[in-house]
Amino acid sequence: MRTTDMPLIRRSRLFAQVGEPDLAAMLTACFVQTLPDGAVLCRQGEKAEFLHVVLSGRVGLFGEAARDEALVEFLGPGDAFIVPAVVLDVPYLLTARLLDEGRILMWPAAAFRAQVRATGQLAYGAVLLLSGYWRTLIGQIKDLKLLSAIERLSAFLLALAPRDTGPVTVTLPGGRRLVAGRLGITPQSLSRAFAALRPLGVSGGGREVVIADPARLREFAGVRALKNT
Amino acid sequence: MRTTDMPLIRRSRLFAQVGEPDLAAMLTACFVQTLPDGAVLCRQGEKAEFLHVVLSGRVGLFGEAARDEALVEFLGPGDAFIVPAVVLDVPYLLTARLLDEGRILMWPAAAFRAQVRATGQLAYGAVLLLSGYWRTLIGQIKDLKLLSAIERLSAFLLALAPRDTGPVTVTLPGGRRLVAGRLGITPQSLSRAFAALRPLGVSGGGREVVIADPARLREFAGVRALKNT
Repeated sequence: MRTTDMPLIRRSRLFAQVGEPDLAAMLTACFVQTLPDGAVLCRQGEKAEFLHVVLSGRVGLFGEAARDEALVEFLGPGDAFIVPAVVLDVPYLLTARLLDEGRILMWPAAAFRAQVRATGQLAYGAVLLLSGYWRTLIGQIKDLKLLSAIERLSAFLLALAPRDTGPVTVTLPGGRRLVAGRLGITPQSLSRAFAALRPLGVSGGGREVVIADPARLREFAGVRALKNT
Repeated sequence: MRTTDMPLIRRSRLFAQVGEPDLAAMLTACFVQTLPDGAVLCRQGEKAEFLHVVLSGRVGLFGEAARDEALVEFLGPGDAFIVPAVVLDVPYLLTARLLDEGRILMWPAAAFRAQVRATGQLAYGAVLLLSGYWRTLIGQIKDLKLLSAIERLSAFLLALAPRDTGPVTVTLPGGRRLVAGRLGITPQSLSRAFAALRPLGVSGGGREVVIADPARLREFAGVRALKNT
């Protein structure tokens, strides 16, 4: 572990309530790895061996079926995965893969389980972290059930936008195939959705997307009714 | 609160780690209500006022868009909702409605927030509860992204089945319109999916469904590859 890792570790909601001496003691069980793009951190169906905390880089959580996989969610610095499999001591429901080079805190599962059970502040941090994830997953399920592909793409782009006055440039968290998976549509449907948003001021190629007027896009998509309430 | 409520309260994962005297002290802030079918317990977009714990009855969590709603998940005895909105002190993302008469423990939001922050055993209970919910939601997202309507219905029915050798009768947790919403399909698609499963030994009307051979249904749907790994 490098001294420069500590500020990164402190960024995670998981540790927000843990005091310095307690944190230092907990981290003696952990180590940090720098891993390349594409590295598999945990695999669906396998017993949970580590809790992982992203210090840098992006991670994709993938669900796998017999002949297919889909991106379930993107994670980034401060995110911990996959807390539920580790806490409940059950097999992972998802595969986690690095989407670029990243530094990952590795916390042996048994040590984390004992610690979260014994340390109220760590448990409370886990409650805050899981609460945030619950809201992300609920948002995604609502999008999948209630919004069209165009509305889903609009909502996804607007969630990436730092402000509501344009123009703003947003960077997709992964390639277009991954974004299509996150939105639960085919890459072809994603291309059609991007084309449909062009007259509304959404443009750009690759992972850079320009939104000329976020407020107008929000208005169009009727996203306000779903996301802000 | 009736004395008969205590065994029901003890059923919740939330309280599994809390000792008797602590639990009794916590519950002084709470009250229990018996409410009719259709009662709205919390409403999407409103500030979290209570944490609710289901003691009896079934609850539907609904997501609402401008002109539509969809059932996100069914809850039952032992379930607490909606922990994340209460803990983070933010508006509910979902509306909760009773699907039949029920007894509900009402815990004022500010009191629950203070308690979960101060009491490690309660926080740990919340971690266990939220971990279970995470896995339910991840399962649903994987189903929505990777399975056909017929496969989703098969997986949903199999999850209700108490054993893998048939015939078994399962009771749908709500009417067919609600089940369609839970599966993210239209009622028409649900009817077609039931018809497609008839040659595989799935029969019955209303909320009672007979599965002649669960193992055969599991084999057909290829669910094993998705759910058991």
